Amino acid sequence: MAGWGWGWARAVRGLLLDVSGVLYDSGADGGAPIAGSAEAVRRIKASGLKLQLCTNETQATRADFVRKLRAMGFDVSVAEVTAPAPAACRLLQERGLRPHLLVHHDLVPEFAEIDKTNPNCVVLGDAAEHFTYANLNEAFRLLIGMEKPVLISLGKGRYYKETDGLKLDVGAYMKALEYACDIEAEVVGKPAKSFFESALAELGVPAEQAVMIGDDIVSDVGGAQQCGMRALQVRTGKYRPSDEHHPLVKPDAYVNNLAEAVDIILQQQQL
Amino acid sequence: MAGWGWGWARAVRGLLLDVSGVLYDSGADGGAPIAGSAEAVRRIKASGLKLQLCTNETQATRADFVRKLRAMGFDVSVAEVTAPAPAACRLLQERGLRPHLLVHHDLVPEFAEIDKTNPNCVVLGDAAEHFTYANLNEAFRLLIGMEKPVLISLGKGRYYKETDGLKLDVGAYMKALEYACDIEAEVVGKPAKSFFESALAELGVPAEQAVMIGDDIVSDVGGAQQCGMRALQVRTGKYRPSDEHHPLVKPDAYVNNLAEAVDIILQQQQL
Repeated sequence: MAGWGWGWARAVRGLLLDVSGVLYDSGADGGAPIAGSAEAVRRIKASGLKLQLCTNETQATRADFVRKLRAMGFDVSVAEVTAPAPAACRLLQERGLRPHLLVHHDLVPEFAEIDKTNPNCVVLGDAAEHFTYANLNEAFRLLIGMEKPVLISLGKGRYYKETDGLKLDVGAYMKALEYACDIEAEVVGKPAKSFFESALAELGVPAEQAVMIGDDIVSDVGGAQQCGMRALQVRTGKYRPSDEHHPLVKPDAYVNNLAEAVDIILQQQQL
Repeated sequence: MAGWGWGWARAVRGLLLDVSGVLYDSGADGGAPIAGSAEAVRRIKASGLKLQLCTNETQATRADFVRKLRAMGFDVSVAEVTAPAPAACRLLQERGLRPHLLVHHDLVPEFAEIDKTNPNCVVLGDAAEHFTYANLNEAFRLLIGMEKPVLISLGKGRYYKETDGLKLDVGAYMKALEYACDIEAEVVGKPAKSFFESALAELGVPAEQAVMIGDDIVSDVGGAQQCGMRALQVRTGKYRPSDEHHPLVKPDAYVNNLAEAVDIILQQQQL
């Protein structure tokens, strides 16, 4: 019965994986891997299926992020990570935008090549402790002083779960600036369609042969389905039982964790 | 011509005055009185018209606030100030609510009589520098952990003007918590109808014989008009020329400052 309703998984050629809440639970202590996930990543790769990590992580450069994941036993490389900061850099360059950065200090190196003099937009990331009143007010004053304020937000999550509890995510601060300036932010990162499309391009697999696996019912599951992908929700990370009655989004299936998802998909592939 | 269209002012028996941006410009340096406003307050009192200050100020107790105003030359008393914190205390007591306070430290004494053990709601004020990530996250965690989260916001202003520039107001942080918790805050303070009604009760004059004078087109002018009052916008404080093309709110008149408003109203009273 485990494979019931999973016929579509036979056509899968690539997996997009959310990271926090799927591979590991983040935390001030560095976080902790979720049981079975490192082995699941190895099995995906051994099977010949393609794999790409699709994360809204903006508290570290991809290089530091991958270093942390490898230390936890995950066999992943920088090229296998699709993250908002590099996507934002492409957008800034295409449009000739010079950002004021309100992001985590550890993310700043991702913007090393970008001209930041005389800013004509604000880029907002999950700055966590750097979300002081003074820093938010500085971003607000720059925006309200622009003829056409441009606010680019690296994600719009409400909150995420760390090992010591829930944490406010960048979306809450995006809403604060949107309200104060009476503007609407442009979101780079999940659930933006262009972000999933970048991840699929890096995965090298069309939407109908890809599956997204995440713990966020709206951002991961809803976002991926809007792009024509299948999407699974894991019952780890910030998953809450009430997600299973979400009024708008219904995953293609629930799985207890990444390991179970990989078990079932690989079984289907062998049928 | 100065009195053209002001016939209604003959029926006025009481004035509600916004404070910041009408009597003085606030600032880290203590602020500075607006020219002519202290004399205008004296003339209102000498005329026999009633006067009540109607403020969303939540960075100080009313006692400290009045002390500051008196030092700037304003002849006002604590009983003449309607402010959100005392209104919130009445609401908390009526509904048996025990607040967690995320407010400016200097406002805390207003809540001295309120039971704050084992909180079942959050009260949000203009905490300014106290809006750290840790403090906002603490309020968020309390709310998201409640079966029915109750968020009471002391105002919903976007921003205000201090002598050294614009400052984010409580409304921005209210929106952040509303989004993170998927809830709607209850607003105590302008433009809430119940708050204007309290101010009118303290003024002792019915709405149709009262006029509100403020610098905020939405919160002061729109809010007062919704209660059946006349309302004037001053061209001081955070007034911006674009306010004169506001899509929804049109004041009964514009005046350059409080002194001009009082001149015209007193002239009309003598006709």
